[in-house]
Amino acid sequence: MIKIVVAGFKGKMGATATKMVLDHEKFELVGVLDPFEEKLNLNELAEYPTVDVPIFKTKEEVLSVQPDVWIDFTIPKVAYENTNFAIENKISPVVGTTGLTEAQLAELTDRSKTLNVGGLIAPNFAVGAVLMMQFAQKAAEYFPDVEIIELHHDNKLDAPSGTAIKTAEMMSEVRVKKIQGHPEEKELITGARGADFEGMRIHSVRLPGMIAHQQVQFGGVGEGLTIRHDSYDRSSFMTGVALGCEKVVHLDKLVYGLENLL
Amino acid sequence: MIKIVVAGFKGKMGATATKMVLDHEKFELVGVLDPFEEKLNLNELAEYPTVDVPIFKTKEEVLSVQPDVWIDFTIPKVAYENTNFAIENKISPVVGTTGLTEAQLAELTDRSKTLNVGGLIAPNFAVGAVLMMQFAQKAAEYFPDVEIIELHHDNKLDAPSGTAIKTAEMMSEVRVKKIQGHPEEKELITGARGADFEGMRIHSVRLPGMIAHQQVQFGGVGEGLTIRHDSYDRSSFMTGVALGCEKVVHLDKLVYGLENLL
Amino acid sequence: MIKIVVAGFKGKMGATATKMVLDHEKFELVGVLDPFEEKLNLNELAEYPTVDVPIFKTKEEVLSVQPDVWIDFTIPKVAYENTNFAIENKISPVVGTTGLTEAQLAELTDRSKTLNVGGLIAPNFAVGAVLMMQFAQKAAEYFPDVEIIELHHDNKLDAPSGTAIKTAEMMSEVRVKKIQGHPEEKELITGARGADFEGMRIHSVRLPGMIAHQQVQFGGVGEGLTIRHDSYDRSSFMTGVALGCEKVVHLDKLVYGLENLL
Amino acid sequence: MIKIVVAGFKGKMGATATKMVLDHEKFELVGVLDPFEEKLNLNELAEYPTVDVPIFKTKEEVLSVQPDVWIDFTIPKVAYENTNFAIENKISPVVGTTGLTEAQLAELTDRSKTLNVGGLIAPNFAVGAVLMMQFAQKAAEYFPDVEIIELHHDNKLDAPSGTAIKTAEMMSEVRVKKIQGHPEEKELITGARGADFEGMRIHSVRLPGMIAHQQVQFGGVGEGLTIRHDSYDRSSFMTGVALGCEKVVHLDKLVYGLENLL
Repeated sequence: MIKIVVAGFKGKMGATATKMVLDHEKFELVGVLDPFEEKLNLNELAEYPTVDVPIFKTKEEVLSVQPDVWIDFTIPKVAYENTNFAIENKISPVVGTTGLTEAQLAELTDRSKTLNVGGLIAPNFAVGAVLMMQFAQKAAEYFPDVEIIELHHDNKLDAPSGTAIKTAEMMSEVRVKKIQGHPEEKELITGARGADFEGMRIHSVRLPGMIAHQQVQFGGVGEGLTIRHDSYDRSSFMTGVALGCEKVVHLDKLVYGLENLL
Repeated sequence: MIKIVVAGFKGKMGATATKMVLDHEKFELVGVLDPFEEKLNLNELAEYPTVDVPIFKTKEEVLSVQPDVWIDFTIPKVAYENTNFAIENKISPVVGTTGLTEAQLAELTDRSKTLNVGGLIAPNFAVGAVLMMQFAQKAAEYFPDVEIIELHHDNKLDAPSGTAIKTAEMMSEVRVKKIQGHPEEKELITGARGADFEGMRIHSVRLPGMIAHQQVQFGGVGEGLTIRHDSYDRSSFMTGVALGCEKVVHLDKLVYGLENLL
Repeated sequence: MIKIVVAGFKGKMGATATKMVLDHEKFELVGVLDPFEEKLNLNELAEYPTVDVPIFKTKEEVLSVQPDVWIDFTIPKVAYENTNFAIENKISPVVGTTGLTEAQLAELTDRSKTLNVGGLIAPNFAVGAVLMMQFAQKAAEYFPDVEIIELHHDNKLDAPSGTAIKTAEMMSEVRVKKIQGHPEEKELITGARGADFEGMRIHSVRLPGMIAHQQVQFGGVGEGLTIRHDSYDRSSFMTGVALGCEKVVHLDKLVYGLENLL
Repeated sequence: MIKIVVAGFKGKMGATATKMVLDHEKFELVGVLDPFEEKLNLNELAEYPTVDVPIFKTKEEVLSVQPDVWIDFTIPKVAYENTNFAIENKISPVVGTTGLTEAQLAELTDRSKTLNVGGLIAPNFAVGAVLMMQFAQKAAEYFPDVEIIELHHDNKLDAPSGTAIKTAEMMSEVRVKKIQGHPEEKELITGARGADFEGMRIHSVRLPGMIAHQQVQFGGVGEGLTIRHDSYDRSSFMTGVALGCEKVVHLDKLVYGLENLL
């Protein structure tokens, strides 16, 4: 059993992480941390009536339960201090808080190497999305003809999505440069052929009902290869958090990005 | 058994139609027509060694076998004369030749009514494509939020495809006018949101390997409805030709467009 | 503006309906009904702080606000009485409560005809699902080769889903009977070819993450036609409830089933 | 430019390979081999009127044009002798002929190591299909919930397809064992839940019009990941043959299976 503490357990992500740890057969929740919660035990809160786990106010108190892993979904300033504290006390951090600076990341990574402590900081914990991007990059080596169709709810402001652009960038690193489509193709209505990213085309669909979906579609002579990710729900991130908790205890330094654990 | 003659049996479409008639359990091939073929019987040709069916040189000869249906895949000028001749002789025409003028169509239709002869002239015999467009139109009454994704091989010149534009036009007849997407949405790369057809968006994917595919995607609160047609092969038209042959013998006039038989 | 009252406004469906009416530009919420709610106005409840709409305890009180439409998401016994009351008072009922008996339905329909009052009782308000089934039935006339793939979350007990079976039944009414697949096909692993419903095959996929999806897939020579419905969320029913409210005021009798309004 | 010779250039695969080499900008066709062809140059054949390339009758003659790569689509007995001959003469073989014995493969591999000659023998050259299987295996490490839907034309005899079974086997090597679906799930019609392969379900769809398609569908909490391969045409194998030709000249031994080059 991996002993885990969750910092920021009252936020949306922190609460979901807390439940994941409670439900996971390989994990034991040994404490949660929030300086502003007055209660002393989870069983005093309406959401966790039968869960006997201490609520800590300060990071120093956490040491009393000797956790192996420190999950952190707090705010950047706090996350930096917490991660530093965890490393110094040989607790492996799994940090989902975004917004740490490059300098902070570098410093934390150095310290983790010195102290031989594994850890993970990740801006995105969706395992499926990360795999989609890795697979797309791999396929782009062999199939330079590729288009991305990304579909989101219709109150999204930006098109293409950040994930679509990141996927295109990753494919661009390995793909033979190529302008796709017929050299003399003609748009009868402007925009039909989508956004042009180094010859790859990106199409952004916006419809009510949709959540967050992306399809990377490759074409070769006589064949097609499609990789699709559907994200239905915030809870999808938890597969990645759980994976992080299992892996960090075997690492000897802090890594940045879930893709480095897959 | 419906007795059928095929005019233009040596062209690509005519040959496919001839084979369809031979294979269909409700049809009997009673003759084929081509003024330039010297042989007198299909069994003299390499493709049909065991098929004992007369080859006619003139349309008048066809009358000797008393067909119920006249399938025509010739050229516009011939098709007009053939169709006229068929109607006058109470043979139901099923005409795939494109390029008849509006005046010719009107005249043929009038004659068919006078003589009480059923018939069909259709620019497109793909039953699946016609159903897709009909379903899309119906759904657009209830779901004004709709985008079209059409996918073709990468040597297609025009984008969007003719079918996509026709589908959008049909939906536009019944759809409540609506600009889709967020009012403040922003294209980070031009074209991401596709072609704008009265607020509906059309996305044209072009990839090697693909043939001809179209997906009409509707979104409503908490749900999605998708209608997709895949055309893999010219032979797909034959389902519509067969359907036409079965239906025209029960009609009392010439109709234009397969959709009127569905 | 159509004036609407919602009975059963505190249940899940009733609450969603109440919000839909408040948000809809053609509707005016003139009252809600719940015999057990002590407050007198929606603005006394935490969910509706700014909504000044009376809460009624008895159906008789409702008459004071002269609604055009009576939305009912209560329990069967109450629903029957409410619907009867609405009809007698020339208010058009839109009833989502399931469990009315055939005798009750017949009686209510008779009364509505006598009094010339439009209304709708529907076990399923998902417009997209109803359209999918209608389209599938239509396509089955032309494409007897069809398989259904339905995908649900993995805590669903029954396979195939009720919707899949109903879709197959509807197709069966019009489809030429046909055993699909190769006559000598062989299952290397039992079950590979799915459930056999009069020769049509049904495949049930169960995976975490999925919600409720169904794909009806037709094959013809050289082509394919696919109709897919994705249900992401209970709120999808509201499109149908809204549609019902708009249509019933133009009807002259009670109808059963949303499909009769599409 | 890589200089290439094609053995078995008159068979279906060999002819497709010959055309691929002629069209490829990095390849030069320096000869073809067929002991039964009487003509001496491709330009004497109707298919290649303008291609001036010698036709050889014996493998010894091939040495005169000093090829870098020897593509072989012959029959097993000949393929073994040809491959052996190519290796001994420091020509890199790319062999698609199936049916070599394990002993022959071992012997050829040993010889290639001794002589430091790269080469490839592959039963399957479809790059897309191989990538699909590799990606599926990788994803199965993180998502043990997975079902396979494979779709083929309706004259296929076996279900599931060989590719589906191979994919399941590959996933089984890395996947945490798990019975999928609800423990108490119930098939209302036998077969609905598909073929059971160690808890993973496989569904085989058979429809006219389809060619060869496979979809591997993973589910996780709140998300889905789908990998799909569509094979439209025999020509799809040529991407893999071309890839083989480019890679073997940099290898120092014979490898078996295209997956080892991806």
